[in-house]
Amino acid sequence: MKIKVAIVGATGYAGAEIVRLLYNHPNAEVTAVSSVSFEGKQLSEVYPAYKGFCDKVCENQSEVVDKADVVFAALPHGLSEALAKECDEKGKRFIDLGADFRLECEEDYQQWYEKSYDCPELHSKSVYCIPELFRQNVNKDSIIANPGCYPTSISLGLYPALEKGFVETEGIVIDSKSGVTGAGRGLSQTTHYPDCNEAFSPYKVAQHRHTPEIEQSLSHAANEPLKVTFVPHLLPVNRGIVSTMYARLKSGVTEDEVFAAYNKKYENEPFVRVLKKGAVANLKNVKYTNMCDISLHFDKRTNTLIVVSTIDNMVKGAAGQAIQNMNLIFGLPETTGLDLVPPAF
Amino acid sequence: MKIKVAIVGATGYAGAEIVRLLYNHPNAEVTAVSSVSFEGKQLSEVYPAYKGFCDKVCENQSEVVDKADVVFAALPHGLSEALAKECDEKGKRFIDLGADFRLECEEDYQQWYEKSYDCPELHSKSVYCIPELFRQNVNKDSIIANPGCYPTSISLGLYPALEKGFVETEGIVIDSKSGVTGAGRGLSQTTHYPDCNEAFSPYKVAQHRHTPEIEQSLSHAANEPLKVTFVPHLLPVNRGIVSTMYARLKSGVTEDEVFAAYNKKYENEPFVRVLKKGAVANLKNVKYTNMCDISLHFDKRTNTLIVVSTIDNMVKGAAGQAIQNMNLIFGLPETTGLDLVPPAF
Amino acid sequence: MKIKVAIVGATGYAGAEIVRLLYNHPNAEVTAVSSVSFEGKQLSEVYPAYKGFCDKVCENQSEVVDKADVVFAALPHGLSEALAKECDEKGKRFIDLGADFRLECEEDYQQWYEKSYDCPELHSKSVYCIPELFRQNVNKDSIIANPGCYPTSISLGLYPALEKGFVETEGIVIDSKSGVTGAGRGLSQTTHYPDCNEAFSPYKVAQHRHTPEIEQSLSHAANEPLKVTFVPHLLPVNRGIVSTMYARLKSGVTEDEVFAAYNKKYENEPFVRVLKKGAVANLKNVKYTNMCDISLHFDKRTNTLIVVSTIDNMVKGAAGQAIQNMNLIFGLPETTGLDLVPPAF
Amino acid sequence: MKIKVAIVGATGYAGAEIVRLLYNHPNAEVTAVSSVSFEGKQLSEVYPAYKGFCDKVCENQSEVVDKADVVFAALPHGLSEALAKECDEKGKRFIDLGADFRLECEEDYQQWYEKSYDCPELHSKSVYCIPELFRQNVNKDSIIANPGCYPTSISLGLYPALEKGFVETEGIVIDSKSGVTGAGRGLSQTTHYPDCNEAFSPYKVAQHRHTPEIEQSLSHAANEPLKVTFVPHLLPVNRGIVSTMYARLKSGVTEDEVFAAYNKKYENEPFVRVLKKGAVANLKNVKYTNMCDISLHFDKRTNTLIVVSTIDNMVKGAAGQAIQNMNLIFGLPETTGLDLVPPAF
Repeated sequence: MKIKVAIVGATGYAGAEIVRLLYNHPNAEVTAVSSVSFEGKQLSEVYPAYKGFCDKVCENQSEVVDKADVVFAALPHGLSEALAKECDEKGKRFIDLGADFRLECEEDYQQWYEKSYDCPELHSKSVYCIPELFRQNVNKDSIIANPGCYPTSISLGLYPALEKGFVETEGIVIDSKSGVTGAGRGLSQTTHYPDCNEAFSPYKVAQHRHTPEIEQSLSHAANEPLKVTFVPHLLPVNRGIVSTMYARLKSGVTEDEVFAAYNKKYENEPFVRVLKKGAVANLKNVKYTNMCDISLHFDKRTNTLIVVSTIDNMVKGAAGQAIQNMNLIFGLPETTGLDLVPPAF
Repeated sequence: MKIKVAIVGATGYAGAEIVRLLYNHPNAEVTAVSSVSFEGKQLSEVYPAYKGFCDKVCENQSEVVDKADVVFAALPHGLSEALAKECDEKGKRFIDLGADFRLECEEDYQQWYEKSYDCPELHSKSVYCIPELFRQNVNKDSIIANPGCYPTSISLGLYPALEKGFVETEGIVIDSKSGVTGAGRGLSQTTHYPDCNEAFSPYKVAQHRHTPEIEQSLSHAANEPLKVTFVPHLLPVNRGIVSTMYARLKSGVTEDEVFAAYNKKYENEPFVRVLKKGAVANLKNVKYTNMCDISLHFDKRTNTLIVVSTIDNMVKGAAGQAIQNMNLIFGLPETTGLDLVPPAF
Repeated sequence: MKIKVAIVGATGYAGAEIVRLLYNHPNAEVTAVSSVSFEGKQLSEVYPAYKGFCDKVCENQSEVVDKADVVFAALPHGLSEALAKECDEKGKRFIDLGADFRLECEEDYQQWYEKSYDCPELHSKSVYCIPELFRQNVNKDSIIANPGCYPTSISLGLYPALEKGFVETEGIVIDSKSGVTGAGRGLSQTTHYPDCNEAFSPYKVAQHRHTPEIEQSLSHAANEPLKVTFVPHLLPVNRGIVSTMYARLKSGVTEDEVFAAYNKKYENEPFVRVLKKGAVANLKNVKYTNMCDISLHFDKRTNTLIVVSTIDNMVKGAAGQAIQNMNLIFGLPETTGLDLVPPAF
Repeated sequence: MKIKVAIVGATGYAGAEIVRLLYNHPNAEVTAVSSVSFEGKQLSEVYPAYKGFCDKVCENQSEVVDKADVVFAALPHGLSEALAKECDEKGKRFIDLGADFRLECEEDYQQWYEKSYDCPELHSKSVYCIPELFRQNVNKDSIIANPGCYPTSISLGLYPALEKGFVETEGIVIDSKSGVTGAGRGLSQTTHYPDCNEAFSPYKVAQHRHTPEIEQSLSHAANEPLKVTFVPHLLPVNRGIVSTMYARLKSGVTEDEVFAAYNKKYENEPFVRVLKKGAVANLKNVKYTNMCDISLHFDKRTNTLIVVSTIDNMVKGAAGQAIQNMNLIFGLPETTGLDLVPPAF
């Protein structure tokens, strides 16, 4: 018997990607989809690519919870808590792809999202989960806070170095670049083709809302509070994030030691590949899959560790990781439905 | 027990794509790969995307046949016949992604490829097979001539109209546009990024070697010999072909009649979608899959039928169709391993 | 003393491109710009590229005519006639980049634009002018109907063959591909980066409003009314149009004859290059300039003339040709301000 | 009387761009071009874009010096000194777009380029010149070392902050992204379209040869030796560099102070635009011109100054700056021939 899945916000990019990935999941099936903008329309009218594969009609959010064992929510921030509450009360599992459950500290949420919690009691049941780093915190009743795309690429990239105390916690610089699907399906001048093509620039410089989420994970890794400088850029490709991260190596730390720690950390992780010395992570090698590639580089002249981490922002950075989390809370192998070879081109 | 597959020419784009697609095939496994340029190297050294998924070492062509039940050959023209002979003698199935077995008439081959057949006797065992059109010609001993990318998009698009006699056989114009993977992995100035990006032009105008292959299939459809004007263009995208085809409607043929014939022809074909009136085929809706989308348009002012057909040149136009053909000759459902949802972005 | 230029609709792509090109025009200067959407804003706020080069504040349309000797209008169809009338009454020259004055026959305009003329009397003073083909029709009092982008590429490409009677006037097929700036600055799902990048398809198949304008010019060339099949496609590049055109050669017409006629027609035209036999026109060779490249190809198997014509849709297809027309009516060399080398990359 | 210009290495991207820009220079003309690979061919055969604009035949390097007042050399490193010597002896001016004269310290050159100086005596006559920063060092007899593309974007971006002592000289991180023309016209797998399109990664991480050149200029600015961490990335666009630079602000330095210093430094510089608070530099706003856009950002949470600097790598990063330097040594206004509006799209 398959897990019944409802997707709320199914016509956004993350929601649509969950639909695509679940189509080949052997133990789950999409039983309902909802959308505010396209209620009453088939998903394949919004995405003609899906014609014949998912022609489900978008329903009202109020109709879908009862049809599911687990609800994925891909909603703007501020809209997930009420839905989480409904799911919790009805005994449905809830996986939130939005930001409402990601921050452990309500003050951080208030500061960055200008809003308080609607259902504070639910937050004790929620777990922020990049499985490779935090799966031990999850149990079968957890509400899952599915991490943001930038924080996923960054946390996987810096966690081992901070956990082992290889680098200074001050002065970490993170320069990230994201494909345009990261900006969503909504129209804007910035993502209008002639404005976006053959263009490149940072945005929300040192002001992006993923900053506290990044710091939360890295502080856990370092076992002390830390702050980072984080600058995202808009990259003229459809998919993928590359994060280039800079941290000062502590005195005496060797290259071999760092490689060994990363290899050890991820040796049993099917979705993380620590590249060999000399190789450089490239987003093209993870596209359309749940993989994260990490390469490690050492600037001996300035004693700096440079970590390059790359994921597909829509898969490991959103829909894929959400399914990985579903697998986790339902006791399935995490790779179920996600065992995909990245296309070579 | 899985079908054992060897891929000759595995480091070319078509060969590499077969490897990717077969990874998720439940009834087949890659047992050997060969490459002239990269003998002794792991496939994942050539394509780092495959690290951990296919780390097989490229062998010499002479070593791989014995390890397989079926051999896929992705070779430059002129090199497949000898290999086909070896396979035939050893009782191995052979699927050729090159041009050597595609043309039924040796004179055509001589004219367009400037070469005679090396093993004429094999050609009686070979079948040119777009399964949706020609599967009835195949039996379990057939050598498969896997069709070219342009001919696949074009034949699927025009076959029903010609078969039904809806259009004149003279004056057919075919304007095709292909993504850059169609030019292969080899370097050239034309496919150097700054030359190819933000550029567009036709090439081999009315001289492309796929012309006789197109005419062969369309002549079968029309049940009379016909010639077409065929102009391919290089499109600045990685994958996909769009063929826009123009044919004069015979007097009295109605729009409804044409739609009905196309819908009937393909109603049980899982890989062909005839779009509804008003919709337009777009390559983005078939990428990374074995699908072919066809849209039909009528210029009543000039009495012209316009058919737009789109495929992924590397999947339905090469590797995917080859696997579909393998499924066919091994008695598996044709969709086995190929039941993939096109990504929405 | 410089020609004073006002641009109405200066924040659209065509208007903005006129501003850019006129900056280096030795005999003209922009004295006023207007915009409905951005009234009161500097043009360089809308286009930061122009900071320091054109910081003029966008005014109301009603304010700009008096500040100019010539008014360029880049407006949606239906809005130009009133402005043309005002200019005419005030003795100002008027160059319309929209469609209102392009069609000689009001019935065509009614049919394709669903609107009648507001000022029929003005149409006797207006001249549709691709200078290379129609400059003889213009005098210093003419209202200029600046041609559409597709019609410019097509008319320059087919005119000589039709004028000389080399090809049949029936059955002409025109398959055009345009960069995304052709769709304008306005947002739409089709031109949203992730929808448009790595995508390709035709649009408005056999229904594009440029069709009657194309037929008007080609009928003049052939000296008889003709109809064409015209299908435009959206090309994932910023700029440029390639039109691939197919016409049946009349019996006995030779390749040399055709080349000779094209070379003769354009031998003194600085903006048209007829490429040598064997070369193929590519949009990358005309980008950012007023050039039109034409290549000629012969499919002897089907007796078809294939003409490939390429322009920059925003320059020769809009702003550049408008300035060329301004030069023409003000008695300046047509190349003034437009003598630009296409970038090699 | 115009300055006679010879370009050695004219078929490389930088050389070809000089040709394009000089075409509209009122006081200079190209009198000779040379190329090793294309000797005897017209430049317009190599770059069909130039047909009719520059059809000069590529000569042997030995033939061009005598035809010129100034020689631009766009050669691989190690080949410029001999040519510089010849020019010097013949009283010709010499502008080197390669690396041979850029480093003031021969040990640095030996370390990074694995080669000693061939003509050490010439180096006392050579001046490394980003005109906005170093024009005071140049006189009419100087051999010009035209700066590299990355160093130009970086030096313009960080110079004022270091000169004023606003930031710490330790721990500076520079994350740069360059369009693909930066890799040159030569073919490589990395720049093969399907490998490069929809891809992104750093390269030569902390090992790029521009590092000592960057440090040289920034050390001058700071008036003390400093080292930086520099990581370049390959960006899937044709043109443009964006450098995102991170430096720790010294205690007490205010945002206003920094803006004021940058505005003051560049207030009379026609090619540098310091953007207003809140604006972000984007490469699309400088493309095809000699402009450099700089935006300033403050991460108050970590006390970090973030400078974003963008140029067109082929213009301000190569050919345009070389012409600016030519103007400088010939006593012309630096903007001569370079007063170009960046296209809005």
